[in-house]
Amino acid sequence: MTTASPAATPAEDYRDTPLVGIVMGSQSDLKIMSAAAEVLRQFGVPHEMTLVSPHRTPYRLIEYGETARKRGMRVIIAGGGGAAHLPGMLASFTTLPVIGVPINSVTSLHGIDSVLSMLQMPAGVPVATVAIDGAANAAVLATQMLALSNARLADVLEKYRTALKDKVMRTIEELRKGGFNDE
Amino acid sequence: MTTASPAATPAEDYRDTPLVGIVMGSQSDLKIMSAAAEVLRQFGVPHEMTLVSPHRTPYRLIEYGETARKRGMRVIIAGGGGAAHLPGMLASFTTLPVIGVPINSVTSLHGIDSVLSMLQMPAGVPVATVAIDGAANAAVLATQMLALSNARLADVLEKYRTALKDKVMRTIEELRKGGFNDE
Amino acid sequence: MTTASPAATPAEDYRDTPLVGIVMGSQSDLKIMSAAAEVLRQFGVPHEMTLVSPHRTPYRLIEYGETARKRGMRVIIAGGGGAAHLPGMLASFTTLPVIGVPINSVTSLHGIDSVLSMLQMPAGVPVATVAIDGAANAAVLATQMLALSNARLADVLEKYRTALKDKVMRTIEELRKGGFNDE
Amino acid sequence: MTTASPAATPAEDYRDTPLVGIVMGSQSDLKIMSAAAEVLRQFGVPHEMTLVSPHRTPYRLIEYGETARKRGMRVIIAGGGGAAHLPGMLASFTTLPVIGVPINSVTSLHGIDSVLSMLQMPAGVPVATVAIDGAANAAVLATQMLALSNARLADVLEKYRTALKDKVMRTIEELRKGGFNDE
Amino acid sequence: MTTASPAATPAEDYRDTPLVGIVMGSQSDLKIMSAAAEVLRQFGVPHEMTLVSPHRTPYRLIEYGETARKRGMRVIIAGGGGAAHLPGMLASFTTLPVIGVPINSVTSLHGIDSVLSMLQMPAGVPVATVAIDGAANAAVLATQMLALSNARLADVLEKYRTALKDKVMRTIEELRKGGFNDE
Amino acid sequence: MTTASPAATPAEDYRDTPLVGIVMGSQSDLKIMSAAAEVLRQFGVPHEMTLVSPHRTPYRLIEYGETARKRGMRVIIAGGGGAAHLPGMLASFTTLPVIGVPINSVTSLHGIDSVLSMLQMPAGVPVATVAIDGAANAAVLATQMLALSNARLADVLEKYRTALKDKVMRTIEELRKGGFNDE
Amino acid sequence: MTTASPAATPAEDYRDTPLVGIVMGSQSDLKIMSAAAEVLRQFGVPHEMTLVSPHRTPYRLIEYGETARKRGMRVIIAGGGGAAHLPGMLASFTTLPVIGVPINSVTSLHGIDSVLSMLQMPAGVPVATVAIDGAANAAVLATQMLALSNARLADVLEKYRTALKDKVMRTIEELRKGGFNDE
Amino acid sequence: MTTASPAATPAEDYRDTPLVGIVMGSQSDLKIMSAAAEVLRQFGVPHEMTLVSPHRTPYRLIEYGETARKRGMRVIIAGGGGAAHLPGMLASFTTLPVIGVPINSVTSLHGIDSVLSMLQMPAGVPVATVAIDGAANAAVLATQMLALSNARLADVLEKYRTALKDKVMRTIEELRKGGFNDE
Repeated sequence: MTTASPAATPAEDYRDTPLVGIVMGSQSDLKIMSAAAEVLRQFGVPHEMTLVSPHRTPYRLIEYGETARKRGMRVIIAGGGGAAHLPGMLASFTTLPVIGVPINSVTSLHGIDSVLSMLQMPAGVPVATVAIDGAANAAVLATQMLALSNARLADVLEKYRTALKDKVMRTIEELRKGGFNDE
Repeated sequence: MTTASPAATPAEDYRDTPLVGIVMGSQSDLKIMSAAAEVLRQFGVPHEMTLVSPHRTPYRLIEYGETARKRGMRVIIAGGGGAAHLPGMLASFTTLPVIGVPINSVTSLHGIDSVLSMLQMPAGVPVATVAIDGAANAAVLATQMLALSNARLADVLEKYRTALKDKVMRTIEELRKGGFNDE
Repeated sequence: MTTASPAATPAEDYRDTPLVGIVMGSQSDLKIMSAAAEVLRQFGVPHEMTLVSPHRTPYRLIEYGETARKRGMRVIIAGGGGAAHLPGMLASFTTLPVIGVPINSVTSLHGIDSVLSMLQMPAGVPVATVAIDGAANAAVLATQMLALSNARLADVLEKYRTALKDKVMRTIEELRKGGFNDE
Repeated sequence: MTTASPAATPAEDYRDTPLVGIVMGSQSDLKIMSAAAEVLRQFGVPHEMTLVSPHRTPYRLIEYGETARKRGMRVIIAGGGGAAHLPGMLASFTTLPVIGVPINSVTSLHGIDSVLSMLQMPAGVPVATVAIDGAANAAVLATQMLALSNARLADVLEKYRTALKDKVMRTIEELRKGGFNDE
Repeated sequence: MTTASPAATPAEDYRDTPLVGIVMGSQSDLKIMSAAAEVLRQFGVPHEMTLVSPHRTPYRLIEYGETARKRGMRVIIAGGGGAAHLPGMLASFTTLPVIGVPINSVTSLHGIDSVLSMLQMPAGVPVATVAIDGAANAAVLATQMLALSNARLADVLEKYRTALKDKVMRTIEELRKGGFNDE
Repeated sequence: MTTASPAATPAEDYRDTPLVGIVMGSQSDLKIMSAAAEVLRQFGVPHEMTLVSPHRTPYRLIEYGETARKRGMRVIIAGGGGAAHLPGMLASFTTLPVIGVPINSVTSLHGIDSVLSMLQMPAGVPVATVAIDGAANAAVLATQMLALSNARLADVLEKYRTALKDKVMRTIEELRKGGFNDE
Repeated sequence: MTTASPAATPAEDYRDTPLVGIVMGSQSDLKIMSAAAEVLRQFGVPHEMTLVSPHRTPYRLIEYGETARKRGMRVIIAGGGGAAHLPGMLASFTTLPVIGVPINSVTSLHGIDSVLSMLQMPAGVPVATVAIDGAANAAVLATQMLALSNARLADVLEKYRTALKDKVMRTIEELRKGGFNDE
Repeated sequence: MTTASPAATPAEDYRDTPLVGIVMGSQSDLKIMSAAAEVLRQFGVPHEMTLVSPHRTPYRLIEYGETARKRGMRVIIAGGGGAAHLPGMLASFTTLPVIGVPINSVTSLHGIDSVLSMLQMPAGVPVATVAIDGAANAAVLATQMLALSNARLADVLEKYRTALKDKVMRTIEELRKGGFNDE
């Protein structure tokens, strides 16, 4: 029966279908959001990245949300600044998990306006909000969701954690050599 | 050509067509939003009031936005609490003016979350935001817009202003009698 | 009776009368507020732009507000930073719709002080507040109001929306060619 | 020349002329603002109290500001909630000192909206802002200003300070008897 | 091979293993957090609920985080008020997705302190933050994650969405009968 | 008796006694606070400027507060950043009016921390708080207080107001020539 | 030399000297601050509690700060609401550690004004700030400081921690019996 | 018994044991936190400085907290930006006093997110929070705690205070020579 376990599905099978869709409202969000694509590339998670403006291309938003599941997508990462409606509205057109990345754009209030626009969703339609400009973490969170039924990704995440720890430990070692531990 | 212009319709004629649509995301917003209906009733502005949940009935939102102009509507007043996406998303489906009323609901941050969700719209798709719980003012603003091409409403607004002033003056008189001006 | 109605005036006729007045409290607001003039110019909406300091030229403010309607003006766009009283006080001297643009000036709290000064108006005297530094959107909103009785402007707005969408779609295409959709 | 100087008028003489004007935008502010009148009464400072709504009775505001000095007034205390424009606009029509009392009304953001509306005035037109709901302190501040040229009031303030201190000391004594100092 | 697909695993099989762990820092959080259990019960998602205080029982936190995956848990929902470290620290001890529910407790700043404590996690260790007091939405989000590999739950979520919509539509109907659509 | 009244002293006489003391907690505040000195110099108001650190030189603060009145001082302007205790503590040692200038220093929260530290004084001991970095306005306010008993300063203030207005009008004229009024 | 060291005094000996001074600005703070006294009583830490108003009894503040060390005091806990200057000013008159307790009083902004007034102290004069209304924690922190040189108190703190943990565990047990762990 | 008491160890003896541990979550915090090390070096307080990431090296955090007391440490200074869990979690693993330094990192909300994450700890587990970026003050506070049982450090602190005052006085003198006192 364990063979029937979700994680038994070989990751390689869905390699060509983007499992994660990264969307953002404006080209100016690219600088922040590309960090999500970079992390997913490192983790070997098939993904796509495009623009979906909730206010300028609302029909594109609807189509994106409506077709995501059918297209094989599993998780949507949506970033935005200001009155960031993209993640919340996508969540209204799909029951896939939607992760929101509040973006500290030039015209926003340090990103707190976007945090509140994403976070304070009504009962029934959640958005999983991460840190301001936290696109990399959105990718980690998306992978954690996929890893629930994918043993390879679960393993990737464990190794990533170890690598994070190792990097801190190496920094400590270097600082120690540089006299950091200063007594 | 003027006959084709909407404003050429005499105000009396469109009595039966709602010129202002009052919408809100949840039944709990009714207490606040009914103040808008009350003001419009006083002003003799045909209106309708209903629920449109951006997250629970998104297709209803689209239809509402798309058909508003065709149905003869001129202004939309949309209220909401928390991540209040209703006015902004309606504004994406129509070029009619949309007025946003941030609502200080039980689960919101004094309404400041809704203020930011409505106010911080991207270039091209404005929401005319009024005060927190300011449904009455939304109705006044909607009437001001209609009055641009309706002499009766322009007159109504002038009288309303005078009445506001008179009420303050009467209060002053009463307080004076009560010894308010206390020297 | 339609001849007496303002909107019966064909749009072409009032070409030379400014329909929208753009005002601001200080010369330093010009950089932000000129975006409103630019949008109105594109839309072919006659407008004027000047300084009206609520605190340094209060009588000018009164005169501006009192005479606006008589001069043929339909909408006032008023910008300001800090304790931005200009839109609210203009709204006290006219029943024309007043749109407020909170400005994130050097000495302001990211513009949130101006947002609250404009937004939180008392019952009866609304200010239609738009995004911080949202002068372009103020112009779009003003045009939406004018378009209620002007078929040409209603058409202009539809085309503007399409142009906004097309611009997003072209960006997507370019990004796609550049390998943006990175799987 | 000293005879022409306002302060040359002995304090006793202007007993019947209100030296301090207490104004507020709405009857609902009375509960808070009457604390200012109470303090002035205790200090023997002639004062008057009335309503001046900046948005509903703007011409009354102008007249109040313009005539204040001529009427013999020395200081204006102006309270308001929400977008509290009253003190700032009064300050635009007079060069008398204006003290602003931000009021935490039902529809305000804990009064912080009013604080910012009063405090963030542009260069040249200050408002002396006191604590949220701080009407009593506004009266103390007004008296401090008057006391600059009135020896009796300077003495009254010293005695008031001593009384404040004595009250604290008496409370300490009572608490001590009640076992407050609990070792 | 599609039979080996994650969703093919009958939900009944893991009925006895809690797939979702609901934890909170204090008994006073129970009132809010039990909404998550209620939703999961409705959805037929096996879950457990208990207290884990990050500051009073830190070793329990470590054990909970470390063993969650081994015990068969898939998602952790962690609620807390004030300096709400529980979700973030659990996320440090597991690579399972952790959902944070900021709680507006008596001693917190309307929950905004908890929002920031959960949201602003460093790169590599995300917390999926939902609305203040949004325990029900945390349960929906957890189910969305599980539904990625469980066809029954995907179906449950679709039905839940339909039910949400139906409830809004029924309310509209009732309000209409009650004269809500008041023209 | 008028001879004993402070205001009876002709303005010319106290030329050599500083009527206004400008104090600040740190040398880094000089850049902002010197604007107050500049305004007072223009107005011909005798003043002094020095450092008084409430936390590093608390005894100097006490002496400054205690002796201010005796030394002939009439108003104290106190600026500070962060937990700006200087104006509030000075106000505890004198009954002269104290004006607080919140300073947006490098280490402060845009100056809002200082605003609250100054503004929220307890009953009996007010601080007249002006805008963030509003040292010039503090000087205007101080002059308004002095002008209550000094006809020359009252006249200076009127002329200053006129000059402010004239400057705005000249700017308008220049902008008009430059095609600012762009229709 | 160790005999000269304060910590050489056995804990039992200084039973009668208050080691911790609990002070607050107003009688209304008593409800919150008495929690500090209660914790210290439980821990067997000699303490005293009294009022010291920084603004109404500033000389008492100076004396309290100046004499604290000489009187044998080791730690000062100072609570206050609004512009809470008490802990910061006490810290200016002593080099003993001062713990600040921001109080969410009726007239304060949820206590955030007091947090900033206490926290943002300039370099050289720290205030150890604890949670809003966190008087109990102030007492725990004070005891942690005393325990650095007092083995009994170090032991008391360990037992207190264990008790905190045990209480959580007992609650878990009770909830479990009540069906809390609801699968 | 005094021999068993920590404070009985003469200050000179523990020269080689770090009494204060300075820790931070990330190398980017070094620039701010090294100010703490600099102050402790000046005061002759043995200390160590290293990285402990609560989220990337949680086991290192536990070990650091658990062993701190045994290793002879007396006080921990922990800095962090964003969701700064380091001081709060260290406080959960030790009863030594923990001082929190909120850091205004690039990705944080001016440091207010970190302030709230540190400050709002639950009853029983305090963090002594200092100003944003206030690492120097954290070191002063740590020394104040150590000075409770170390006469040399008490003396060092008194001299440091005098030096702070002298520096202000010298600045005043220099400014006076430079014409600062400008009358």
